[in-house]
Amino acid sequence: MRPYETDPKAIYAQSFATVRTEARLDRFAPALHPLMTRLIHACGMVEIVDRLAYSAQVAEAGQAALRAGAPVLCDCEMVGAGIIRRYLPSGNEVIVTLNDASVPALAAKIGNTRSAAAVELWRDRIEGAVVAIGNAPTALFHLLELLDAGWPKPAVILGFPVGFVGAAESKAELARDARGCDYIALRGRRGGSAMASAAVNALAAGLPEDV
Amino acid sequence: MRPYETDPKAIYAQSFATVRTEARLDRFAPALHPLMTRLIHACGMVEIVDRLAYSAQVAEAGQAALRAGAPVLCDCEMVGAGIIRRYLPSGNEVIVTLNDASVPALAAKIGNTRSAAAVELWRDRIEGAVVAIGNAPTALFHLLELLDAGWPKPAVILGFPVGFVGAAESKAELARDARGCDYIALRGRRGGSAMASAAVNALAAGLPEDV
Repeated sequence: MRPYETDPKAIYAQSFATVRTEARLDRFAPALHPLMTRLIHACGMVEIVDRLAYSAQVAEAGQAALRAGAPVLCDCEMVGAGIIRRYLPSGNEVIVTLNDASVPALAAKIGNTRSAAAVELWRDRIEGAVVAIGNAPTALFHLLELLDAGWPKPAVILGFPVGFVGAAESKAELARDARGCDYIALRGRRGGSAMASAAVNALAAGLPEDV
Repeated sequence: MRPYETDPKAIYAQSFATVRTEARLDRFAPALHPLMTRLIHACGMVEIVDRLAYSAQVAEAGQAALRAGAPVLCDCEMVGAGIIRRYLPSGNEVIVTLNDASVPALAAKIGNTRSAAAVELWRDRIEGAVVAIGNAPTALFHLLELLDAGWPKPAVILGFPVGFVGAAESKAELARDARGCDYIALRGRRGGSAMASAAVNALAAGLPEDV
């Protein structure tokens, strides 16, 4: 077997150098670089950077929210598992309500998925929160409906639902009208919990060499 | 906002129909369809099916191992979090050693990453196990080194490390010589914990309509 790189610092440095060069990040505002770098690093695809939709202040708004102690509301356990707790600047809570015992009955009641029902349980924590959606289009759609119905606003929506039914459509709706929230989303079918977690980690701590 | 699909069964059915059609799964052996469908579903990219490398019996071997009670050894917490426990046919253990207290010292001792050191802790459980790697190229590289050094063989290696340094190379090495194990891997930089979890879920339970 050929030798391979075993030094974590060298691996990170080489990875991020590749991302910077291939994605030509100097086209974008510097505040966005850590966010874009971690998103690309999480999926191995430099070209996603040209399919991101975002508000101009998304990085600053997300950083400020986390520093102020905002909770992180996740649509599934995988997103929660990918958030590096020691990066969080204020011991921020990471909340996943999907497996709450009340969710199946609530889903039946509202006539939507369990992922959408789980969003209803964010009601008391949504104001100023960081929302990280890495799986379910219905979670993002339903959040937008609840905001339209008058819910308080989260600080930032990190929109990375994935798949073939509703993922592209829910992110297009977010990009069309983010309901006054800062946001970032990957247009199209691609996404996933690794990207949603990576976005939180970037807002929390920048890149590893900054930590 | 436009109406969107809220019925989970309809979402799954429509998703899997899209995957079957766009990926033209009828080119492949039927036993591979659930595995390929879940992998595509996890990442939103039908074209990955043409970049998979695998042994002919990978689906059957993985199913048999799980039915026989094999543990699932994961390289990171996210992979473990994505495995749907109720799908596992024999109450199989899901093991993640990355955050074991002994790992940092072990990494320093062997001169490799924490992910590689965590693999060393699989020694007593590796024989006949299902290995799911969704993050670290060095975990896959080091597993192959340990197999070369005479370790007992796992039943199946699910190889989905992701990124710019070593991901493509470690999966190419697995595909070149899987050391007598059954395996599946996504060639190139792409991969991730969602795909690794999806592969385990497919081996455990096929597609949702089969559960």
